[in-house]
Order: sequence, then C-alpha cells, then structure tokens
Amino acid sequence: MATSVGKYLLDRLHHFGVNHIFGVPGDYVLRLDKMIEQHQIHFINTTRESTAGYAADAYARLKGLGVACITYGVGINITNAMAQAYVESSPLIVISGTAGTDEFAKCQTRHHLINKSISVHCDTTQLEIFKQLTVDQAVLHDPETAAAEIDRVIDSCLFHKKPVYIEIPRNIVPQTIPSHHAWKKKEPAKSDQESLSEALEETRKILQKCKRPMIWAGHELLRDGLSQALLQFAEKHHIPVVSSLLGKTVISEYHPLSVGVYQGGMSPKEVCDFVESCDCALILGVVLDDLDTGIFTAKIDQEHRVVATSKALNIGHHHFHEVLLKDYVEGLSKLDVKTPFSHPFPQSRSRIPQTFHPVVGKATTTKRLFECIQKYLRPEHLIVADVGDCLFGAADLVLDYNSFLACAYFASLGFGVPGAIGAQIASPDRRVVCIVGDGAFQMTATELSAAVRYHLDPIVILLNNHGYGTERPLLEGTYNDIQDWNYTELPSVFGGGYGIKVTTEDGLDKALSEAFSQRGTFYLIEVDLGKTDFSPALRRLGELLGQVVNGKKEG
Amino acid sequence: MATSVGKYLLDRLHHFGVNHIFGVPGDYVLRLDKMIEQHQIHFINTTRESTAGYAADAYARLKGLGVACITYGVGINITNAMAQAYVESSPLIVISGTAGTDEFAKCQTRHHLINKSISVHCDTTQLEIFKQLTVDQAVLHDPETAAAEIDRVIDSCLFHKKPVYIEIPRNIVPQTIPSHHAWKKKEPAKSDQESLSEALEETRKILQKCKRPMIWAGHELLRDGLSQALLQFAEKHHIPVVSSLLGKTVISEYHPLSVGVYQGGMSPKEVCDFVESCDCALILGVVLDDLDTGIFTAKIDQEHRVVATSKALNIGHHHFHEVLLKDYVEGLSKLDVKTPFSHPFPQSRSRIPQTFHPVVGKATTTKRLFECIQKYLRPEHLIVADVGDCLFGAADLVLDYNSFLACAYFASLGFGVPGAIGAQIASPDRRVVCIVGDGAFQMTATELSAAVRYHLDPIVILLNNHGYGTERPLLEGTYNDIQDWNYTELPSVFGGGYGIKVTTEDGLDKALSEAFSQRGTFYLIEVDLGKTDFSPALRRLGELLGQVVNGKKEG
Repeated sequence: MATSVGKYLLDRLHHFGVNHIFGVPGDYVLRLDKMIEQHQIHFINTTRESTAGYAADAYARLKGLGVACITYGVGINITNAMAQAYVESSPLIVISGTAGTDEFAKCQTRHHLINKSISVHCDTTQLEIFKQLTVDQAVLHDPETAAAEIDRVIDSCLFHKKPVYIEIPRNIVPQTIPSHHAWKKKEPAKSDQESLSEALEETRKILQKCKRPMIWAGHELLRDGLSQALLQFAEKHHIPVVSSLLGKTVISEYHPLSVGVYQGGMSPKEVCDFVESCDCALILGVVLDDLDTGIFTAKIDQEHRVVATSKALNIGHHHFHEVLLKDYVEGLSKLDVKTPFSHPFPQSRSRIPQTFHPVVGKATTTKRLFECIQKYLRPEHLIVADVGDCLFGAADLVLDYNSFLACAYFASLGFGVPGAIGAQIASPDRRVVCIVGDGAFQMTATELSAAVRYHLDPIVILLNNHGYGTERPLLEGTYNDIQDWNYTELPSVFGGGYGIKVTTEDGLDKALSEAFSQRGTFYLIEVDLGKTDFSPALRRLGELLGQVVNGKKEG
Repeated sequence: MATSVGKYLLDRLHHFGVNHIFGVPGDYVLRLDKMIEQHQIHFINTTRESTAGYAADAYARLKGLGVACITYGVGINITNAMAQAYVESSPLIVISGTAGTDEFAKCQTRHHLINKSISVHCDTTQLEIFKQLTVDQAVLHDPETAAAEIDRVIDSCLFHKKPVYIEIPRNIVPQTIPSHHAWKKKEPAKSDQESLSEALEETRKILQKCKRPMIWAGHELLRDGLSQALLQFAEKHHIPVVSSLLGKTVISEYHPLSVGVYQGGMSPKEVCDFVESCDCALILGVVLDDLDTGIFTAKIDQEHRVVATSKALNIGHHHFHEVLLKDYVEGLSKLDVKTPFSHPFPQSRSRIPQTFHPVVGKATTTKRLFECIQKYLRPEHLIVADVGDCLFGAADLVLDYNSFLACAYFASLGFGVPGAIGAQIASPDRRVVCIVGDGAFQMTATELSAAVRYHLDPIVILLNNHGYGTERPLLEGTYNDIQDWNYTELPSVFGGGYGIKVTTEDGLDKALSEAFSQRGTFYLIEVDLGKTDFSPALRRLGELLGQVVNGKKEG
C-alpha cells in the first residue's frame, strides 16, 4: 500500500517503540505535526525546543529511542540537548521541518532560514550545525530515496546510541514513497570472532591470576542492555561492582555485589580504599571524564586492567580492534574462571543511613535532605537529577536497577525538570523524583506546565542554596547570585500541583511524606538551604576544581 | 603598561560603548566573569544563555554593539539568538570561556566538552557550530596573537553588523599581552569612487525622469546610522518613505513624509495602492524576505528600481560592485534633482486612530488593544515586539524614530521579554513596552526575573489568545494549544512587579493608564483574547501562508 514520506517515518519510529514525540510546532513542520496527530504516536508539546530535547533524551535513555520534532531555524534552540545526548550516548532523533524544496528554489529569503550555507534544495546551515552533534543525518528532499535514508539514520541512531538528524522539506511530507521500497531489519554488526576469543581468553587468564578484581561499570552497559550479562558474570565469580556516576544503577545498588558509585577522591572513603586495594580493574562502558574520575583522582593503574567501551577494547597496553562492547560483555558472562574471589569489599546497601528521624525545628542541610529522601525511596521511584549539588548528593542515594538519570558528564544545567517530564511519559507506572538546584531550576522550570497539561505527577525537590552553589567555592562573585524566586507560587501559575517550602527537618519530613504518599499531582518542594551548605562531595570537588579555575593547578 | 588578554578584551569592548555584558557563569568562564566584575562593565545575569543572547541582541541594535558571555558547550543554548542576530544584522559578540589549553593537552575528556571536532588546543565543535552563525571567529589560544585577533573580530562585527565569536581558554585569560601590540583604529572600507559617482548620477537621472518615486527603507539604514542622510534626501525632494517591518521607525512615523510599514498584501490598502501607483522605487537597506514582502505580494517591478543593500547595489538590471550602502545613501543626501515631486501619498500619522474611548464591559479585541496602546504612546516609549499577532498588530502603531525592535525576519518566538530587558538596560531613560503573545511568552517569561533584580520597569502586554494563534489559520490541531497559565501570578513568583488581567475595554484602558503613569516597577498586563481573534493583518497572512502549508499553493 502506498504510504507518504511522513507516514513512513512515523511508522518506522513507532516500530522501534516510539509512542511519543516531543516538540514545538511551527509552520514548516505543521504538516508533519498533523500526521503525528493522526498517528498512534502522541505529540507532547513543550514550552520550547530545548526542553523538548531534554525530555526526548530522557525518554530515549529509558525506552531505547526518543524523538524531538522542531521547526527550521528557530528550532536550533535544541542544540544543547543534542550535545548532551551526543556526549552521553543517548539515542535521540531530531526531526525538523523546513521550507519546501519548491519554495526554496523560487526564493531563499524566507523567515526562519539562515542561509549561511545552502544547497540547491535547501538552506543547509542547520544541517551543518547539527552535523557537529549527530552521528548521521538525512535531508529528505527526494521521495525516491527518502525511505532508505530514514532507515539508515534510524539504524545509525540505534547502533551508536547517539543523536541523528532528519530534515523534511514541508512539500515532501505528503509525497508518496515508491512502492518498491521494503524495510529490512539491519544485520547487526559483529565482532571479529578470533579477536573476541583472544580477548576473552586473555581476560580469563588475568582473572585466574589476580586476587582482588573489581568491575567499574558505566552507562554504555545500560544503553546496550548489558546489565543482566554483567550481573551474571559478576555473580558467577563473586566480583564486586562499582559504577560511574553516569552509569549509576547499571545494577541495583541493593545487590550484595554493589559497592556504589566510584568517582576517585569524590567518593566515600571506603569505596576509594577498596578500589585502590584491587589488583585488577575491568572498566566496562565507562567514559573516563573529569567528573567520573573525580577530577582525575580515580585510580586506573591497577596491575591488571581492561578498558572496554563502545570505541575500543584495551587490555593492559594493547588494543583489540573490531571487538564490540556487547559481544565482549556477553562473552564475559559465559566465562569460566576457576578461582572464586573472596576479597572483602564495602556494600553500597550498608551505607543506607539509619532511618531519618527529624529533629523538630532544626534547619535542614543538604546531607540531611538526602537522608530524608532515602527514607521514602522504593523500587518504583525513578530519580532524575539535575547538575550541581543535587547530582553529587544524589550519587550517595542507594537505588534500584535503572532508577537514575542525570547528565553527569556533559553537566548541562536545566535537564532536571524536562528530563522528569520525558521520564514520566516513558515510564508511566513509575514515580519520578526530580532533584534540582535553584540555578538549574530557573532555566527550565516552565516545563512543569507540561506536568499539569499531561497529568504527570513528578516530585520535584528543589535545593535552594540561593545561587550557583557549585561555583561559589571555585571563584565567588555576584555573578553567582540569582534572583530568589517564591518558587512555591509556581503551581498557581501553571494551574496545578502543590508547592511546599521547607526550612526545618520536620517540615521536610512532613512534605516528603505527603508527596510520596499522594499520586496524581506534581509536588514542588523547595528546601531552603544555606548559601554555603555544600554536600561533602561537592566540597571536595570544589577544592579540586577551584585550583584549576584560579590557575593554581593544571587540571 | 602590561595588560592581560581578558582585560584587553574588556577594554576594547568598553571603548566601543559596551557598558553591560549579558550572560550565565560557568567554571570555564569564571575568571573572565571575575574580571568583568572588577571592570567598569557590568555583568547582567540572565536565567539562561539563550535569553542572554536575545538581551545582548536588543542592546546591540540600540547601542551599536552587544555582548553575551557564556561557558563552553552548555552555552550553545545561545545559538538561536545568534542566528537571529546573523539574519537580521545585529552586531552581537559572543564570548565563551573554555577549558585551558594546558588542561586540554593533558586530557580531552572533560565536562561540557563535545569533542566531535578537535584541534591541538581545544575542542573545536562549538567553533564549528558558531562558524555557521557568525562572520568572524577567534580562538585566543596564544597571548602573542590574541590582541590582534580581538581587534580583527570586533572590527568585523562593527563592519558587517553581524555576530562574531571569541573563545578564550581559561588559562589564557590572565596571561599578559606582549607590550608591542598597539590598537589602531581600522581604516574604514571605501567604495570605488567612480562606481559610486556613476551610480549616483544614474539615480539622479532616473529621479529627473520619473514622476512618482518612493523610498522603501529597511533596517540596514538603522544599523548603519543612515536615518539622517535618508531624511535629508527625502525632504529635499519631497519623496515619501515606506519602511520594511524590520526597519520600522527608520524615520519617525510622525514625519510628514512617512507612509508607514509596507508589506505587500499585508499592509493597509491605502499603503498598497500608493506603492503600486509609484513609477520609481528606491529600495534601501531592505531584505526582501517573505514576511517583509507580504509572502511575495509586494510590488517590486516598478518601471524604475534601485535596490541598495549591504551586499549589492542594483539599478534596473545592472549591478554596481564595490559601492557601499553607506556611501550610496550619503551620496543620495547630497544629490541635486531639479524636479520636485508632488504626487499624493497617505501619511502614516493620518492613520493614528481617534483616541480610544473604552466601551464599558465590552470584551476587548486585538484591534482595539492596539488602538488603546497607541493612546498612551509617547516619544520616550520603545516598543519591543515578539513574533505573532503582537508583531503584525504592532506594525500599525504609529511610532517615533528608532522606537521599535522585533525579529521580524528570523521570526523567533521568545525574543520579546529578554529583548525588553536588553533594550531597557541599553536605554535607561526610555520606557520599554514589550508586546508578546502567550506562546512566545512561555518560552522566555522567566527573564522578568531580571527586571526585578536590576530594577527595570518594562510594561509587558501579553496577548493571550490561548495557543499558537498564528498557526491556527494555517493548520489547526491540538499541537497549537498550550497550557493556559495564570500569568498574573508571575510577579509573586519573581518577587516584584504587578500583574493585571483584563478582559474588557475599560479594564484594559485602566490597566494601561496605571502602567504608563507609574515608573519604577514592571507591569505584566494579560489581555484575554478570543482563540480566533486575529488582527486583520494576521488573517491576511494566514490565508497566504495556509495555502503553502497545505500544499495548495507553492509559496
């Protein structure tokens, strides 16, 4: 049956599990928006394009594919979210409508067009910009080739787990796909079998030899769906697992083999001591960026070391090309090492604080706030953390499998609220708990409007430390101050939800108790904190980074 | 005296009239932020980077140079504002801090870095993106060359009146500029004198011959400070002047020669009839985009035609290379044409509506709203219009010289509120009146926070037509709906200003009367309008555009 370019695209997306597309309409994309309205896929309006991108990114991390749909030119508001998805490997598809090829051929001087770079078919400026933030791109200027282009870029997105870009001139949307095009499942890429065998055998020998191995597991295992394989391998040989911050909850932190998040000098001392005592590190799917290594204080020079990522597999000082992370980790799960390990390690679940008993009237602190949050967390909760002390504090929460989203590497303020919207839509049965600082909150708070419109019920816990708290220890100045809002008035603005401001431990406990027991409406809980009340982890990070900012030390 | 790279940059900016820099801090730019704090230049915090860009753009249009300062990677939030400034020729400088060259050399895997493109000194991804939105760029990785690079890009910005980009690794900020560098005023570019003379002489002959000439004046004359020259030329020969929407108020619309804004079929009938009756069009500094030509319904095939822009000078069907717009227009002002003209034309000031007498209890309409606004306008008022019916309605206001800012070509929703902030800071003696639709307002409303923080008092008139009103006539669907906020609660959130919601003509008149008579605090006046209450101009545009969106007509 004949289908249009627009419908073919939506059908392919739906096939891969996309039930929602986040976006902002605009005249160049209205026809596609109309097609979405008539499709099984739901269109979710956000207040602007950047938040559509953050929401789609969160959706992508949970569902394996997320889509944002924008109009041309003014839609480049979405770049920040694309960069974040690119850096942190989130399978995000950005679709943009643009002027019709017929219109462009007649006259290029049109609203929303930038025309710094052009081709015969269209203004290519946005394409050139998005090339810097995506692994593949297609401009669908020809119905003859459109279907094959769509197939290719979706495959690229799913394989690389990084953003791709699709641009559709508005006159092409309704045009018919030639009937001879038939979608074929792409043959999955395969590792070179001999390289893979050799790498696995070498790993087996290393494990046979060493006494105190550990696994440092990262977000790429989550993206590739390798948590089960990882767990099988770890359990079989009783190997303790630390995770990166970006990969937090790659396995449940209640699991007896979980040691928790490792970030070098930023981690709890017992975690550091454990990692430094190991004679073998299997670093799987971790990007060793500055934040995930505690500003390069993490120990990565263990006697035996394997580093496997989507890009490379290194054992010691040699490299295996053509071994996929997926095949290697699945190979590990079937590995047979004779020696079972029995070195001691600190369990993350042992660090769950004693249940929180509020001291009546006592001003709350960041440390106590997280202890209180921990008290209410259950497996159905899904934490979305923004950047700042909300992130560093959240690192210490003990969480279930796949219960944590954060842009812990790109570190873009403002992901929290729209990320919570996207996460809740992706996982309607779970309850999203968004933890966000005041600086980040002001960037994207308007997206709580979508919570009211779409009947979502995130609990937003706002750490109000009155400014860019992460920056104060680095280099203080009035630029770190922000206007202090009456945050709890926002639900009245949006026409739904509850706002509660708390200053004391008992107030906090009461507010969280109410929010966690009440579904169906969002809660915004503002926690009033001191300007210089940092979590211990942030204080340590601040000291490390401050030396770099001020030129006392090269980072 | 020895000076640092950072201080040299700030000194140069200050020299060219920059007293404020808009931005958001971040660790890669903190040292520069600190230097700004210690400089005569004031740092203005915005809630996020995109709004810093819009505010700096508005500032640039009024002061001749505007600056936004961001941190690396996450700062690409600013792209939309840069695109707008690029397309509409606003002299905007975007400065970004980035990781130190020393840090990058050690390890490239750092927060905020994208690393899709890299050089030996830095992640060049942001540079590659910004190349698409700027006319010149400099990465200051070497103090030896930094000063010359700074000089060059500032000159480019001032000459082209388009954005440029400066990137500073944080370790370079405090490094010393070699003492042998001395800033020299750049020799201004010059036209080829023979070409210029020939073009002017040909223009003189055309004017000598024709009977009914008109001038269509655009924003480039405002950017180049050519309004006085234009007026001299027009007055000397009694030639009526229409302006583009983007160039609105290039001369005072109270001037007896002003005919008002011309946008083809979107303009008042008498303006159309006049333009179509002319036998000579001098089109000066106008970009003939779809919006400024009323979706290409404007008449541009007059018997005699001159088109002079920053890019080209065409007379009839031939081209003069190497003639600058500035020299041509200044040449016109000295031209001596024997024939004085006396053809009739409609004066824009004749279209000032009779003073607004509210009908008590009558629901207000868009048309009546603008009549009411007109009643209160005085020369000290500066209109900042967002995109949508607020823009098309505002086109009909009769305004004084240089009293109108809008992104009437790029058409980016959300410029209004941050644009008003930037405009008010650039022109503290004037009172800014921001006219904005609800869809656009939701995108950037948080910037009213800056009004409270910096004691600014814009009057924000919010046309609440309950959704993306401009799109409804094009292709209606639920994607055009937005969550209806209780907008007047926002002042309570930000901790300042007044919110008034009006539904009737008398309520509107009372609210505007109060707002216009009261300085020192911002007013947010929400005007409740029907979902399908469009201004006549928008209705005409909708009909023209709707045919394109729905494929009934090629645009």
